[in-house]
Amino acid sequence: MTIAEYLIGVLKKNNVTDVFGIPGGVVLDLLYTFEKTEGITPHLSYHEQAAAFEACGYSQVNHTLGVTYATRGPGFTNLITSIADAYADSIPVLFITAHTDIAVGESVRFEKEQELNTVPMIRNITKYAEVIENIDDIFKIEKAVAIALGRRKGPVFLDFASHLWNREICISQFGSYEKETIQNDSLDLVIKRIRGGLKKANRPVLLVGDGVRQANAVDDLKKLCDILRIPVISSRCGEDVGKCCENYFGYIGSHGIRYANFVFAKADYVIVLGNRMAFPAKSKSFSVALRNKTITWIDVDEKEVERIIDNTEVFQLDVRKVISALLESDINTVQVDKWISDCNYIRDKIADFDKCWTVSYLVKILNMIPDDFVITVDVGNNEFWVAQAYVLSKAKNRILYSKSFGALGSSVAKAIGAYYASGKPVICFTGDQGLQLNVQELQFISQEKLPIYICVINNSASGMIRDKELQRYKNKVIHTTKEGGYSVPNLQKLAETYRLKYEIWGDCEEFLSYSPVLLELRVQDEIPLRPLLPIGRVCQNMSPDLPANIFAELDAI
Amino acid sequence: MTIAEYLIGVLKKNNVTDVFGIPGGVVLDLLYTFEKTEGITPHLSYHEQAAAFEACGYSQVNHTLGVTYATRGPGFTNLITSIADAYADSIPVLFITAHTDIAVGESVRFEKEQELNTVPMIRNITKYAEVIENIDDIFKIEKAVAIALGRRKGPVFLDFASHLWNREICISQFGSYEKETIQNDSLDLVIKRIRGGLKKANRPVLLVGDGVRQANAVDDLKKLCDILRIPVISSRCGEDVGKCCENYFGYIGSHGIRYANFVFAKADYVIVLGNRMAFPAKSKSFSVALRNKTITWIDVDEKEVERIIDNTEVFQLDVRKVISALLESDINTVQVDKWISDCNYIRDKIADFDKCWTVSYLVKILNMIPDDFVITVDVGNNEFWVAQAYVLSKAKNRILYSKSFGALGSSVAKAIGAYYASGKPVICFTGDQGLQLNVQELQFISQEKLPIYICVINNSASGMIRDKELQRYKNKVIHTTKEGGYSVPNLQKLAETYRLKYEIWGDCEEFLSYSPVLLELRVQDEIPLRPLLPIGRVCQNMSPDLPANIFAELDAI
Repeated sequence: MTIAEYLIGVLKKNNVTDVFGIPGGVVLDLLYTFEKTEGITPHLSYHEQAAAFEACGYSQVNHTLGVTYATRGPGFTNLITSIADAYADSIPVLFITAHTDIAVGESVRFEKEQELNTVPMIRNITKYAEVIENIDDIFKIEKAVAIALGRRKGPVFLDFASHLWNREICISQFGSYEKETIQNDSLDLVIKRIRGGLKKANRPVLLVGDGVRQANAVDDLKKLCDILRIPVISSRCGEDVGKCCENYFGYIGSHGIRYANFVFAKADYVIVLGNRMAFPAKSKSFSVALRNKTITWIDVDEKEVERIIDNTEVFQLDVRKVISALLESDINTVQVDKWISDCNYIRDKIADFDKCWTVSYLVKILNMIPDDFVITVDVGNNEFWVAQAYVLSKAKNRILYSKSFGALGSSVAKAIGAYYASGKPVICFTGDQGLQLNVQELQFISQEKLPIYICVINNSASGMIRDKELQRYKNKVIHTTKEGGYSVPNLQKLAETYRLKYEIWGDCEEFLSYSPVLLELRVQDEIPLRPLLPIGRVCQNMSPDLPANIFAELDAI
Repeated sequence: MTIAEYLIGVLKKNNVTDVFGIPGGVVLDLLYTFEKTEGITPHLSYHEQAAAFEACGYSQVNHTLGVTYATRGPGFTNLITSIADAYADSIPVLFITAHTDIAVGESVRFEKEQELNTVPMIRNITKYAEVIENIDDIFKIEKAVAIALGRRKGPVFLDFASHLWNREICISQFGSYEKETIQNDSLDLVIKRIRGGLKKANRPVLLVGDGVRQANAVDDLKKLCDILRIPVISSRCGEDVGKCCENYFGYIGSHGIRYANFVFAKADYVIVLGNRMAFPAKSKSFSVALRNKTITWIDVDEKEVERIIDNTEVFQLDVRKVISALLESDINTVQVDKWISDCNYIRDKIADFDKCWTVSYLVKILNMIPDDFVITVDVGNNEFWVAQAYVLSKAKNRILYSKSFGALGSSVAKAIGAYYASGKPVICFTGDQGLQLNVQELQFISQEKLPIYICVINNSASGMIRDKELQRYKNKVIHTTKEGGYSVPNLQKLAETYRLKYEIWGDCEEFLSYSPVLLELRVQDEIPLRPLLPIGRVCQNMSPDLPANIFAELDAI
């Protein structure tokens, strides 16, 4: 068995079926080994950045292992944006590159040309990053995969000496690594705390995040919600987790759903599951809301739990084990009829207040999408419109964001990866600027005739930055609108270039009749993003202002 | 004066007229300050990678300072490929990014989202990389620029706390930095060595590189060559330096000009100016050629000169000062008529041997280009075809490569930067894969109607990797040709999408009649790259083999 075959064996054992990359001299032996191996397919991308986003999208669908390979030098550096994206959003991807047998460690400037000292460049955006120079290093393969998939998931990186690919090895000499797990010492205590908290609370809330899905605990969470029947809110990234629950009231945040922020503000006890509680660190508005409540927070990450948050008791635990233990305990329906009806009243009163035309239209679109389709979303105003519409729609589909790192131009490539992971059609929502950033990847979709619906919300603007410009500089916009020097190519011609069907979104009924397709939704460029939370206000008091009497009424609940 | 104004003042003092970037929240104050400053223009790019290549191209034309700015997070990581390119090719570019007032230094995974600890990620591919957190750090601006432009040039990086942009400062409090220079202690000795070497030599050669242009010494070199009248050879990156000299015999290398490798092999004394002598480190074939000669090597880089090379005496000196000192000494024409006529004989005998159809066609094209146009070239087989044609043509234009790092997809963006640096039309040669990698940047050209001629040498293949595949795996090609799963969009439709004129190259006479234009040269995909130097052969014995009698005759010279 060669080292390349051994590596691929480890990947197959971890259910990897598709890998993404661009060939280059030092990875050819790996590519040829992929090609001849049954059950795993290498795919050609048109930019390494996109190859890496494809692996991220592949991984995100079910939080399984994704894999990208790239050649040395620019092949490697082109991966870095996606590595950071995977790190910030806890996506388990193995990034593979290679070098010739020139020793790494020195500077590129002295006769090295494409050779870089790779590991220090990505050490702080990976869970594990190592060079594999000789056979003694091969144990790092299993170790890297175990680390990627263990505890809080994330990217790992291996840089192989290229002469190793075809080297014969004896498989028995490498130990296997168990995924990192965490102690359950405090499991009994946390169950006691949650039971006690629920007993005392009048307005309990469950705040969930993407960590619930990463822990493969969505079905159990659903069961728990069916028993507890308390309101559920989420992070934006966790909205598809929240949607699986009864009594879901949307995602909180400074661009959150207005009534979700109300529900959070009014709660007196919050159980936080698989959500890293970034919001109080990011916004003083949320700190105010912490004062009137107690919080029991479960997180898997040893660093996140070191943070001290007001009125919050934190436990480093596997969220799945916590939910299982709760289900096994004799936990009962909590009597919160008044609180639920208050939450419903708040929602019904203001759900339409922030619903701009774009969001209303997207709700119609989302209501038509079959449950098994995957949705990917780009970065910018489009992601907030889609996120809002998703909450307001009937959709419960898996929805992938570049949430924490905010990598513009990631959605098309993530759609490609999502297709290979799910085998199902993918709806890709993107803005016009994000589309342009990795537009080359339409060639992949075109060539392979993938069932992908690219929905471009085209406001001919870099809308989110334009909004910031208008806030800060009033009348002058630079580089974010047509007048400011930003522009968009003709999307119909673009679709023709890449042999995609093209439609202006109009009659929604036709929406899903063929693929691949590029659908253009032309929206007025001046639609601002709403709602948002101005600095210095409490989290439920978002802008634009509610009518004073309505705010006063709801805030008095 | 604000800190943004101060920074821009430093840039203007260093003759920066154009900067490239994409706006984002943390750099908006800088962008708005650029916009209101006379004499410097910010330009909008469509991918930060391209913005950075634009700054590289701007810088490379005259080796002056280039500038890119990008927002935090993915804005920053998207720069990294170009930073490495600038480092490897000694391009002085200031890369600017910014962060909010959250302290850098910790990991991104804990509530930081887009904030990265940037400096460690690019420390080993920059000459200087610093965070600017407060007013005490402002001295780093002048220092960074001085370092970028001093000695062996290269990229520098500054990451500003965004709250500083509009902070008022007193300009007098910052010292100014002189460019780094080097000691001239050994100047007399090197003149003595060169005079002695030339006196003894029967077959002296001048080997030049891009370092001569970086030292702003091309005119002096020309004068020196007019006096010495000895053969000149170059690195590939230095071919436009060599072209300024009488008796230029092309560039050496493992893909070098065959007769240049002959001239190098047969020389008995070599003066190396502004060339880092990477070839003997990269290829044993060149080590053989070192045995029969002595070498006097002048290089500016303190690390390069630490390398020990057979029969080579090295001096760390400014090449311009060496050439000036030689011109001021009473150096005379060297009597090498027989040697020159031998070199000419070798050239005339084999110049056409490697000239494939593509190269012949490119010679015709290059012969038509006015002297003041700039040429940019991408990476792959196309760069070697253009490089060969350039040597064989009458062209003496400035020609920009991504030579050392080999960043595919850099040429279109470099063309944009080159236009702003020169104010002259630019010819951009690219392959079909490189074009796709940063195809979004055609929108910049289209919008600004730049006088750029994009010449796509379309063999519908990733030709250089395909050649490696065929060498190594015989009959099967993967991901590099149409049959292997690589494809190219219809370039006529692509041109229409970006409102570029489109022509199939044919009648060369029409070549320069309008711009911007996309010209497609369709070449057969099976044209292999030639000549090349197989492992284990002496440098003049390239593949494909010369007829045995001709090789024997020339090798006996």
